[in-house]
Amino acid sequence: MTAEKVIQLRIQQHTYPVLIGHGLFCRENFSPYIAGRQVLLVTNATLAGLYLEEIKESLADYRCDQIILPDGESHKNLANIEQIYHQLLRQQHGRDTTMIALGGGVVGDMAGFAAATYQRGVAFLQVPTTLLAQVDAAIGGKTGVNHPLGKNMIGAFHQPEAVLINLDSLVSLPEREFNAGMAEVIKAALLADQDFFAWLIAQQQRIKARDPQILRDMIAKACQIKAEIVMQDEKEKGVRALLNLGHTFGHAIETWLNYQTWLHGEAVATGIAIAACFSLQMQWLQAKEYQSILQLLQAFDLPVHVPDKMQVHDFLRLMQHDKKVHQGKLRFILLKGVGNAVICQQFPQGVLQQAIEQHSAKNAS
Amino acid sequence: MTAEKVIQLRIQQHTYPVLIGHGLFCRENFSPYIAGRQVLLVTNATLAGLYLEEIKESLADYRCDQIILPDGESHKNLANIEQIYHQLLRQQHGRDTTMIALGGGVVGDMAGFAAATYQRGVAFLQVPTTLLAQVDAAIGGKTGVNHPLGKNMIGAFHQPEAVLINLDSLVSLPEREFNAGMAEVIKAALLADQDFFAWLIAQQQRIKARDPQILRDMIAKACQIKAEIVMQDEKEKGVRALLNLGHTFGHAIETWLNYQTWLHGEAVATGIAIAACFSLQMQWLQAKEYQSILQLLQAFDLPVHVPDKMQVHDFLRLMQHDKKVHQGKLRFILLKGVGNAVICQQFPQGVLQQAIEQHSAKNAS
Repeated sequence: MTAEKVIQLRIQQHTYPVLIGHGLFCRENFSPYIAGRQVLLVTNATLAGLYLEEIKESLADYRCDQIILPDGESHKNLANIEQIYHQLLRQQHGRDTTMIALGGGVVGDMAGFAAATYQRGVAFLQVPTTLLAQVDAAIGGKTGVNHPLGKNMIGAFHQPEAVLINLDSLVSLPEREFNAGMAEVIKAALLADQDFFAWLIAQQQRIKARDPQILRDMIAKACQIKAEIVMQDEKEKGVRALLNLGHTFGHAIETWLNYQTWLHGEAVATGIAIAACFSLQMQWLQAKEYQSILQLLQAFDLPVHVPDKMQVHDFLRLMQHDKKVHQGKLRFILLKGVGNAVICQQFPQGVLQQAIEQHSAKNAS
Repeated sequence: MTAEKVIQLRIQQHTYPVLIGHGLFCRENFSPYIAGRQVLLVTNATLAGLYLEEIKESLADYRCDQIILPDGESHKNLANIEQIYHQLLRQQHGRDTTMIALGGGVVGDMAGFAAATYQRGVAFLQVPTTLLAQVDAAIGGKTGVNHPLGKNMIGAFHQPEAVLINLDSLVSLPEREFNAGMAEVIKAALLADQDFFAWLIAQQQRIKARDPQILRDMIAKACQIKAEIVMQDEKEKGVRALLNLGHTFGHAIETWLNYQTWLHGEAVATGIAIAACFSLQMQWLQAKEYQSILQLLQAFDLPVHVPDKMQVHDFLRLMQHDKKVHQGKLRFILLKGVGNAVICQQFPQGVLQQAIEQHSAKNAS
């Protein structure tokens, strides 16, 4: 089937499409983006069980190898990147090979980083299967892995040849993962588009019911917001930092939990809640806006309070390692109203601590 | 001291200088290329003993950390890259840090790759101290490490902020390493500049005596040749492949020797000799040109015969892993006369084997 929505990204000299639709796993959607004769499919066991045969049939014209990685953020490390290198070399993949990342953010980040660094860069396709990867991780060329001392500390910018968003893959997505993806959708609305935020509130029941047309429109809108920001600033020297709304707090939570227990989107949801509270206390956000943000997050069963026993000083310590630290100073993405995110480096220390405190576990109702 | 020669590279939106001169290790030559307050100096034990104090004094304005890596091609691996990441994170280097690679090609390739992939890319300076790194490895943004299954199989393109070539550091360079660097100088002449090749033959005694003015002029010329090729084709999609003259054979030798015993430049010298013999048998090179190439290599005590016991079939097997393999076909850089390198993918298999055979150990006089 052909894509129902197509968003074009142009970054430096490289233009590539984000294709959104149903039944996209067929030859005509892969082959325009594969230059050579070799393909390495990178995926995890769950997705291999669901889609590997279908995709390999679509790729019957190519010499198609595969590698199945363990799933989960805790496996997003250099050891698994080495597994990919090993497979590529053992099966003699040349510089003209194409890697296909079939999976969520973890698979996409790892396959993308391996593609960025194998033989100084080979082509790859993003085929995101989770909502979170479809609206966020797969778009914009950020690739990388975690280090024990910090999330995404090792990585590269490497743009794919195309992003194939097959909406069919959302059908089997567990509810908790779907909701985690909603955190990034809500983030996109909050930072750039007040009307989209209002639409999300209005459509929340149909979204939860995974109405195909509604999901298609929602994903296209979130992708469009991300694409526009990335096209302005690929390497995050300016405006792209806005996409980190909620992420500085979220990364601290993930590190504190050793990337276990909570999903990335859940940590981001709590991060958004803290950032919104921070913005409220800076008097940049109205109380009713703050409340509607919390309500929308909670409508998707997302946490808005930090994990039990995690303290303000844990945040302060862990955030010092964050990539957003600039000349030793913490920077936060805050909201001057819904739909208008700003970078903030000047703030009273007390306000930061109060925002975290307000969302500590003991204040969870 | 200010640089005596400056070569400007412009690659995409990034312009950077190659500074060549004496006494360059002073504040005025470093500080224009360091944006933040933090520096990580990456070097090896030998160079740390010679220059670390002098350079750290020049960097007194910065928070300067250091990491001392083991030396030698066999240590150019991911395990040592992880050591660099660990040091950067432990000492809380932010995205605005600057890495300084002080050393030969091994240090430069590793520090460059760590810089390319730490927090998706930080700034770095190349301060090459060997002749080989000064005329070749430090210029053009190729960074990376070896994999047990092949040389430089993992890497990235990442251009430095500047290349500082301090000619003083050649004074202490062991003769064998100096000669290995000459292999890349001779390569540069062979592929692009007949007059430079004639000049090298004419000046060989003064080069061997390391006459400072002659070395300055020779290095500037070799850098200029490399810079011009890299500016035309950063990512090796076309003309940059010419810089691999002698390298496909050379890499096979290095892999066969487990990156031990022979220096990179020595393997390249033999690779150049084989490529020249190959070109001769294609009737693209005259016998007297072939002879003058062998003589010049041997004038610098460089090997022109393959290691004892290494066979034609070892080459054929190992070269299949080379990055220059294109859609399963081997490609070689050959010479259509001195100063004119070409990419060759169509050749009788017998000619390839004969060229290797001709330079096998048993034919060494």
